[in-house]
Amino acid sequence: MEHIAQRVLQGDARAVARLISRLENDAPDAIPLLRAIFHATGKAFVLGVTGAPGAGKSTLVDGLIRQARQAGATVAVLAVDPSSPFTGGAILGDRIRMQAHANDTGVFIRSMGARGQLGGLARATRKAIHVLDAAGYAMIIVETVGVGQSELDIAAAADTTVVVVTPGMGDTVQTLKAGILEIADVFALNKADQEGAAQTLRALRGMLHMGPASEWDVPVVETRAHEAAGLALLWETISRHRIYLEETGQLADRRSVRLKGEVLDLVERGLRTNVLKTLAGSPQFDAVLRSVIARNCDPETGACEILGGVDAKPERIGNG
Amino acid sequence: MEHIAQRVLQGDARAVARLISRLENDAPDAIPLLRAIFHATGKAFVLGVTGAPGAGKSTLVDGLIRQARQAGATVAVLAVDPSSPFTGGAILGDRIRMQAHANDTGVFIRSMGARGQLGGLARATRKAIHVLDAAGYAMIIVETVGVGQSELDIAAAADTTVVVVTPGMGDTVQTLKAGILEIADVFALNKADQEGAAQTLRALRGMLHMGPASEWDVPVVETRAHEAAGLALLWETISRHRIYLEETGQLADRRSVRLKGEVLDLVERGLRTNVLKTLAGSPQFDAVLRSVIARNCDPETGACEILGGVDAKPERIGNG
Repeated sequence: MEHIAQRVLQGDARAVARLISRLENDAPDAIPLLRAIFHATGKAFVLGVTGAPGAGKSTLVDGLIRQARQAGATVAVLAVDPSSPFTGGAILGDRIRMQAHANDTGVFIRSMGARGQLGGLARATRKAIHVLDAAGYAMIIVETVGVGQSELDIAAAADTTVVVVTPGMGDTVQTLKAGILEIADVFALNKADQEGAAQTLRALRGMLHMGPASEWDVPVVETRAHEAAGLALLWETISRHRIYLEETGQLADRRSVRLKGEVLDLVERGLRTNVLKTLAGSPQFDAVLRSVIARNCDPETGACEILGGVDAKPERIGNG
Repeated sequence: MEHIAQRVLQGDARAVARLISRLENDAPDAIPLLRAIFHATGKAFVLGVTGAPGAGKSTLVDGLIRQARQAGATVAVLAVDPSSPFTGGAILGDRIRMQAHANDTGVFIRSMGARGQLGGLARATRKAIHVLDAAGYAMIIVETVGVGQSELDIAAAADTTVVVVTPGMGDTVQTLKAGILEIADVFALNKADQEGAAQTLRALRGMLHMGPASEWDVPVVETRAHEAAGLALLWETISRHRIYLEETGQLADRRSVRLKGEVLDLVERGLRTNVLKTLAGSPQFDAVLRSVIARNCDPETGACEILGGVDAKPERIGNG
């Protein structure tokens, strides 16, 4: 396995795919490899693209791949679908995209589906981004389906996030899901030739004006990705946001916040594993459970009782 | 606030609605109330109904409400939409249902939307179930939109789970989302008069046969909820599953597992709160973070270093 780390650092696509698979499967031998390549991360620009199913994200991302290639940048795409049980391969639209770029070694495309635990996909995606970053891809596009909470978590892994909407979706402020305004750096109004586009554009802009004032006015770019229209402007807008982030120091801030979140998530996960392992054989825990099941004690009170033996410990981190 | 607990125990719908709102908002005065009524829980039968948007769940649940009322049971419905920022009121189809049952004090309907953190909705739903249970509703129907991970978590709160599918959805095994087979006790093939129904039925049954053998053969009931067709059979099938659960002792097992999960979730949440509070001012944590941000240390190694000071503690629960 060890030479895989070296090959990843040399940009070997097969080694990249293999390491991502190992990390997805939580293979114990993969963590030292991530450790060995981590020093080479921090160079890639991470672009998040999210939106409802049917908004045309795949075609739009395909257009962005072409823009990136024209600008001389290598690109890796992670197509993340929290509702798909499949991972590691070519699914649906991705297969077509993969074929289109099959002879271009500057493009890497991979699908990731949800498997196992909640939070696992966001974690696997973050690790995959590190691998692609270390492999030298200049731009990493993380494409997520839908705008649920898990997609928002994944979008939070990006430097710049593009939210793709279509005419009709933005008719009322209410149809935009919770949290979407917070994560959008750029809106792409795709299928902008369809009926209701002007109305959606107006509703979106109105909604953006209601938000808190910022140095960055979230732009709405009209695209028709299936005709490759508007993609140059979208690419330019993304580049402009990147420069904005760099010049204001926000790029470094966003990345620090992300890494902090990643460490905290791993700490929490480790704590959970430890606690579960310990509680499994704990007579106190069994007694509390029996009491809750007999409805003599409510779950909250039971949890407090168990925590009474636990909560003092983290203090030691602060002091030691 | 205290007399609210008494009124909940007397089945007062206004008090029920008010306490659920307080619990959703994590109001500190609500937890003692939950504690005060918890002894009266454990009597309601909890039915989960889940399926993709547009599968006709609302109409089907409306039919189940009528079946329950005919059987003399009181019913509470929690319509849970993880993608909705709205909560506490009447949204979309729920408004129509609420009107239909507005004069029937044996029916309680409430919508719950996602607000705030991931996992928060599942937690709020569990608490709302306890409140409705204590208030004496004989059947609690938890209706969730979609079949993503968070919906699966919510479905896990049910005694019996009905998964609603429509013709075309089951054409290939691949279109059924991850985890759906594990949670389905009964499939309702709704809109069973639409094209492709026979094919979907065959695909579903074929898929069910591939699963592990069980004493309970997951039935597929054909319904046309908008014409009230098949609902009596669906109701009968649900009742049959309930009897199966009771006779095999699985009902008690499922409820114990759920309560255990609820306590563990609250323990984890409490731990996280404690750890975050402590780490916020910890020089060691800051040092690790700086090192990760400088790419001198990967997040996993950083987390292990922090955990080194933490992981010993839960041992004390086991021994003390």
